[in-house]
Amino acid sequence: MNHASPLRLAIAGLGTVGAATVKILESKGNALAVATGRPIAVTAVSARDKARERGLTLGGAHWFDDPTAMAAEAEADVLVELIGGADGPAKAAVEAALRAGRHVVTANKALLAAHGPALARLAEANGATILFEAAVAGGIPVIKALRESLAGNTVQRVSGIMNGTCNYILSRMEAEGLTFAACLKAAQELGYAEADPTFDVEGFDTAHKLALLTALAFGTEVDADAIYVEGISGVTPLDLKMADELGFRIKLLGVAERTAGGIEQRVHPTMVPKTAQLAQVMGVTNAVSVIGDTVGELTLVGPGAGGEATASAVLSDIADLARGTVLPTFGKASDLLIKVNRAPMKRHEGGYYVRLQTLDKPGAAATVATRMAENGISLESILQKGRGQRAEAPSVPVILITYATTERAVRAALKAIAHDGVIEGTPQVIRIER
Amino acid sequence: MNHASPLRLAIAGLGTVGAATVKILESKGNALAVATGRPIAVTAVSARDKARERGLTLGGAHWFDDPTAMAAEAEADVLVELIGGADGPAKAAVEAALRAGRHVVTANKALLAAHGPALARLAEANGATILFEAAVAGGIPVIKALRESLAGNTVQRVSGIMNGTCNYILSRMEAEGLTFAACLKAAQELGYAEADPTFDVEGFDTAHKLALLTALAFGTEVDADAIYVEGISGVTPLDLKMADELGFRIKLLGVAERTAGGIEQRVHPTMVPKTAQLAQVMGVTNAVSVIGDTVGELTLVGPGAGGEATASAVLSDIADLARGTVLPTFGKASDLLIKVNRAPMKRHEGGYYVRLQTLDKPGAAATVATRMAENGISLESILQKGRGQRAEAPSVPVILITYATTERAVRAALKAIAHDGVIEGTPQVIRIER
Repeated sequence: MNHASPLRLAIAGLGTVGAATVKILESKGNALAVATGRPIAVTAVSARDKARERGLTLGGAHWFDDPTAMAAEAEADVLVELIGGADGPAKAAVEAALRAGRHVVTANKALLAAHGPALARLAEANGATILFEAAVAGGIPVIKALRESLAGNTVQRVSGIMNGTCNYILSRMEAEGLTFAACLKAAQELGYAEADPTFDVEGFDTAHKLALLTALAFGTEVDADAIYVEGISGVTPLDLKMADELGFRIKLLGVAERTAGGIEQRVHPTMVPKTAQLAQVMGVTNAVSVIGDTVGELTLVGPGAGGEATASAVLSDIADLARGTVLPTFGKASDLLIKVNRAPMKRHEGGYYVRLQTLDKPGAAATVATRMAENGISLESILQKGRGQRAEAPSVPVILITYATTERAVRAALKAIAHDGVIEGTPQVIRIER
Repeated sequence: MNHASPLRLAIAGLGTVGAATVKILESKGNALAVATGRPIAVTAVSARDKARERGLTLGGAHWFDDPTAMAAEAEADVLVELIGGADGPAKAAVEAALRAGRHVVTANKALLAAHGPALARLAEANGATILFEAAVAGGIPVIKALRESLAGNTVQRVSGIMNGTCNYILSRMEAEGLTFAACLKAAQELGYAEADPTFDVEGFDTAHKLALLTALAFGTEVDADAIYVEGISGVTPLDLKMADELGFRIKLLGVAERTAGGIEQRVHPTMVPKTAQLAQVMGVTNAVSVIGDTVGELTLVGPGAGGEATASAVLSDIADLARGTVLPTFGKASDLLIKVNRAPMKRHEGGYYVRLQTLDKPGAAATVATRMAENGISLESILQKGRGQRAEAPSVPVILITYATTERAVRAALKAIAHDGVIEGTPQVIRIER
């Protein structure tokens, strides 16, 4: 059917995503060749355990024990890097491939968040590119949307639910009134969370993904260190209940937005109005919203993880290369990307949900309100929950919803309130996105 | 900044979308050149009224009174066709441009729904392509998603809310309990509906868009005539109230899906579970969901109309051409597109909502249930609304929700019931999508 020379792939890593990618290349080879006008052949493979049964044919592919040797030496046009990790063999293999002038397709957000600018320059110097649709939000084509579809837009804001583990835990806490610990355990039992869940639940995975979206959306150099990161382990069932009463859901969002002080990048639990598109996204599903000055708001929703969904994104990148579409790694040449001007979190402006445990003594609420006013914070609502049947309770929760203010003002007010001795424990602070 | 030769555009039509496109090209010229690596220049323009003030510079662009002459003669690489209409000047201009080997960027769904296969062949014969991101769902990048991002998928189903007028009317009927006529009037006053709303509210606009999505999703030749089309003018406030009680919303969906009998294409009011992504889409917003065997379900939500949002899609296509990405019109060469095997509506299988006005006489409900059973239809629920305070009412509404059955069986049962003389008026039938 097709007389064009094949696009030759060297695949490094045959875990869930790698095995799914090869399986689909084997089963849909003809359809892909028709769609791209060119056959796609797996000419080399490397993985940790050659003997493991994966249900793959791999006929004709040259086996390499060392992915870096494969990247340098294999007869391939493209390295498909599905090993993972910011450094080690993944980085070595990607660098070797780029030095040899081969394109790279990768799902490795940690690698690009840490070394994106250097790798993009290495790619350019060797006439190659790096494609990474699979690195952010799994099967959702958000990289292509930002890199290509929004060409006529100045992006104002990107925000998203990019970690299925966190969204599953928050959805379940909300639906069943359970604690974070109980829902994390359930997520672990279902395989939605790792044995060590820190990377997911403390927001670092979302931050890596956000760093890549920021670069594409704003034409800036990847700068993951500039991201303010806060996870979901401190969110309580009471916060979810209060959010519900106030018309919000709590989501772990990664948000990057253009502000007067520069590009602000942050990851934290966020109160989202129930009517917002992102609030509808429950369970392990991911979603990304982009606001562009021309298009308005676009929201893309879909599976954020899983071998097959991620392989779908890997295959999208492979198909682009087969069709001859070779764009710069971050959408434009590296020397045209600007260094991100960090907008420090203390300057963040927005509404806040503050939950305090006030001691049940006269004047406590008045003190709280006074300290807020002293710091120029206007309150949209105050909700004091009674002691209910626990007449002996020494303290009661007070919920404050502020109008737009700054992080700095909120922190100053809370410091003063703590100093006044009218609250116990640490105040809960959750930012609000309208 | 840029020494590459410019991509030269001839723009036909300076209505809402055309004027917005030129305005953005004028204001974002530098950013676009950086992003695409090449300047973009408007070298020729044609519109009906040269004298009209549009707030555009248009410096240096050659004015043509006749768009077809411009398409044939202008010094341009691309015709941007924003005239509209399935025939007449739009078709003549597009054909002239393609014959001259120029690419075409268009927002014209009617033209492509009617003449897509012939125009795609003409483009191919002249080494050109037709890009039409703006023709479906305004600013939502669904064309690119289907053509490029889903390369590793066999698509099972595409469904979408692709007409903002209808979604606005249905959203408002639901929220306020108003009639179709009242909400149509409101939509007209707000500029969301035309003076003659037939094309929108009877589903034809959605059908044109669906025809294009079907071609891309299933690799078939555009065949708009194969689409079953039913509009929203027959939906009543009672149907929306019943939908709400049963856990559904009513949306005008365009649906194309792979069935045993071929590709089924249909546009009709649809009961969608409130928990579905498409059910969350209210007002003039559009959304398209795609189910692929590899990725699972993707949903893209955004503005479906408006000059700027549509211009964003036009600019996405222009940027692709500036970057040198030239793919076949419908994703693959025309001779590889298969003729769609029509799955006739009478074979459609699914659940149904049926609302009958049964005469208030003994045995009426039993007759209805018997006729359903005789046609092999299982009922999931029956809801009989009492006469309430209208003791004199000669008939009462009965709502049936069926398990999956065929259109043919439902029609046969309703014919028998009508023949039995136990109902008055025409039964309401609304298909259910789970």
